[in-house]
Amino acid sequence: MTLDEARALDAADPLRETRQRFRLPEGKIYLDGNSLGALPLSTAGRIAGVVEREWGDDLIVSWNKHHWIDAPSRIAAKLAPIVGAGADEMLIADSTSVNLFKLLAAALAARPGRTVILSDQGNFPADLYIAQGLARMLPGVTLRTVPADTIDQALDDQVAVLTLTQVDYRSGRRHDLAARTAAAHRAGALTLWDLSHSAGAIEIDLAGSAADMAVGCGYKYLNGGPGAPAWLFIARALQDQLDNPLSGWMGHADPFAFDRAYAPRPGIARFQTGTPSILAMTALDAGLDSFAGVKMAAIEAKARALTDYFIGCVEGRCPALALASPRDAAKRGSHVVFAHADAYAVMQALIERGVIGDFRAPDLIRFGFAPLYNGFDDAWRAADALSEVLDRKLWDVPRFKARARVT
Amino acid sequence: MTLDEARALDAADPLRETRQRFRLPEGKIYLDGNSLGALPLSTAGRIAGVVEREWGDDLIVSWNKHHWIDAPSRIAAKLAPIVGAGADEMLIADSTSVNLFKLLAAALAARPGRTVILSDQGNFPADLYIAQGLARMLPGVTLRTVPADTIDQALDDQVAVLTLTQVDYRSGRRHDLAARTAAAHRAGALTLWDLSHSAGAIEIDLAGSAADMAVGCGYKYLNGGPGAPAWLFIARALQDQLDNPLSGWMGHADPFAFDRAYAPRPGIARFQTGTPSILAMTALDAGLDSFAGVKMAAIEAKARALTDYFIGCVEGRCPALALASPRDAAKRGSHVVFAHADAYAVMQALIERGVIGDFRAPDLIRFGFAPLYNGFDDAWRAADALSEVLDRKLWDVPRFKARARVT
Repeated sequence: MTLDEARALDAADPLRETRQRFRLPEGKIYLDGNSLGALPLSTAGRIAGVVEREWGDDLIVSWNKHHWIDAPSRIAAKLAPIVGAGADEMLIADSTSVNLFKLLAAALAARPGRTVILSDQGNFPADLYIAQGLARMLPGVTLRTVPADTIDQALDDQVAVLTLTQVDYRSGRRHDLAARTAAAHRAGALTLWDLSHSAGAIEIDLAGSAADMAVGCGYKYLNGGPGAPAWLFIARALQDQLDNPLSGWMGHADPFAFDRAYAPRPGIARFQTGTPSILAMTALDAGLDSFAGVKMAAIEAKARALTDYFIGCVEGRCPALALASPRDAAKRGSHVVFAHADAYAVMQALIERGVIGDFRAPDLIRFGFAPLYNGFDDAWRAADALSEVLDRKLWDVPRFKARARVT
Repeated sequence: MTLDEARALDAADPLRETRQRFRLPEGKIYLDGNSLGALPLSTAGRIAGVVEREWGDDLIVSWNKHHWIDAPSRIAAKLAPIVGAGADEMLIADSTSVNLFKLLAAALAARPGRTVILSDQGNFPADLYIAQGLARMLPGVTLRTVPADTIDQALDDQVAVLTLTQVDYRSGRRHDLAARTAAAHRAGALTLWDLSHSAGAIEIDLAGSAADMAVGCGYKYLNGGPGAPAWLFIARALQDQLDNPLSGWMGHADPFAFDRAYAPRPGIARFQTGTPSILAMTALDAGLDSFAGVKMAAIEAKARALTDYFIGCVEGRCPALALASPRDAAKRGSHVVFAHADAYAVMQALIERGVIGDFRAPDLIRFGFAPLYNGFDDAWRAADALSEVLDRKLWDVPRFKARARVT
């Protein structure tokens, strides 16, 4: 495998042009778009326009004049094809955690008599924390966590809702969305998927897999900026059966009537709670525009090809590393992890050489490939730098071994 | 009352210079800073820097390098003196509605055996909706609403928490924060204040009034931009007794350890839930900087003087209008309302003449005075335009009477 070969693969890549939609830092290889997506070139101008012309000049009138009021549904419509949903099944709101809370609570209320939230014990910890918080609040409700491969057996008539993260934040292992949803439905339970590590990186068919509910963040592969607003999906047929316990004025049937009693809007809009940040919404809108004209099948194909290629490069040159992701690309998301006893120091040494990936405790180095802007050249160079760090033991110095807080 | 007199009052105003900190639209008189605060001059540049240099160039590293991770507490510390609280008693997080939900739920859990949320029946409807949502979720919990002047009598041993908005969004009537808090404490209840219409407009002494909890939005008098992040206050002694049911990873004692079990951070930080928008946080930070060097006693004095002056101007020239705010400035916030049978059309006619206020159903025109940037000149001109609209019946045309959605 040579750099020339990598460049030939880039030249043949149907998505080679979308890299030009982003500002990428010079001299660096950014393989952490699975934590924070890169900055689209259009974002700064879009935000400046909203700040200066809309907020600055038109002030309060902008809620109608510039359609701020419609931002949660308007931007959701752009996201819908990225996750295989109808525009009227999507909403931008709050954070992933807040949306999880709303939908878990709604699911429990929609399955009276059932008291269990079922999850994978390796689910993203933040998701477990939210389920734990809800269980502390609701007498009799419990969170049951089981190993990922025993989910189907753990589905019984006490389970109100099965909540899973499709792509594991460490290994990248991909749950089968349709199969786990079907198993949950056979047991009479609803499903709530966290697609934070999936949306924008792989092909997702929420409608075709009969999923009930989903959530995800906007700041990873969707390129919405740090702490971007999150999103939620509810299958059309289910929407009017679900009650949002965080029943806010933005989800009221007639928010400007200032009635004293809450009455939900029809459809998914009832899952809006408070007033959303229009600046944050604008950045997410620009982030989603970076998908314009792109087919998700092409994203999926590139995610598989890039990660396969990277694994090949690393395994060919770094015998000290053990692949800790599924080998079959169909069973992975768009990031891969390798295990190493000194993973933290190895990643610090790599970052110093301009290859930005992540460390995940206790022993994983993680590399995310954003199909819109990462190429085979990035993969080759990252593997090259990694082999140098390992061959020359560049990680084995005190400043890399003093473990600091990492994100 | 003449325009020259108004200008003389402006010349003598100790806060006359702070208007220069804002970009105000030319040819308009903006009296809706109580709905959406004006744009500080520094905001656009601050946001551009975060977008381009921090997100664009430094990407994921910015969580530490540019201290994004500390934004909720760092920005809260700037807000603390504005509401009379300690820096360690404040947090920026989520929306006002979400924060209300978290704190109402925490209060109920902290007062076991008590099942009533007590509120003023004229409380801001969004706040009532949140309490209703919580009551739907928790068996046995009820929201009890009573007239504002009968709160003390309605406090009994079933009340877990009294929740009130200090300044009424219509009349501007100010609840006595210390007196209502003392009454709640005598009954063994906690207090949760919504200061959205107060913070930045009047002097507030959260610590001195022994308040337990408070929330507020960032987009009104705090000038944080449309849908800015909200804030919450918890009295120091109470913090470690309260459980956040929306227990998210940002409130975890060690969020990057990725433990499976939630463990709250010490203090108020446990009330963080998901990842906050750093762009929205930055705009709020710039908004709060517009208070630099300003004493809240000066804000309070100017709020009283401006609204008194405006009432005088209007009453002198507009006999068709009835003041619907308290006449005593000490009992008002920094906005005033007048009643008129065709209030909607009157406000539309005023807006067309460049005076931006609000209509509130069914019959109120509302004028907010932001002490940092509104002056006596604004008040005089607004009253002048209003008298012309009324004297010449400029509101009595079909296009103003067709009521559209208003914010």
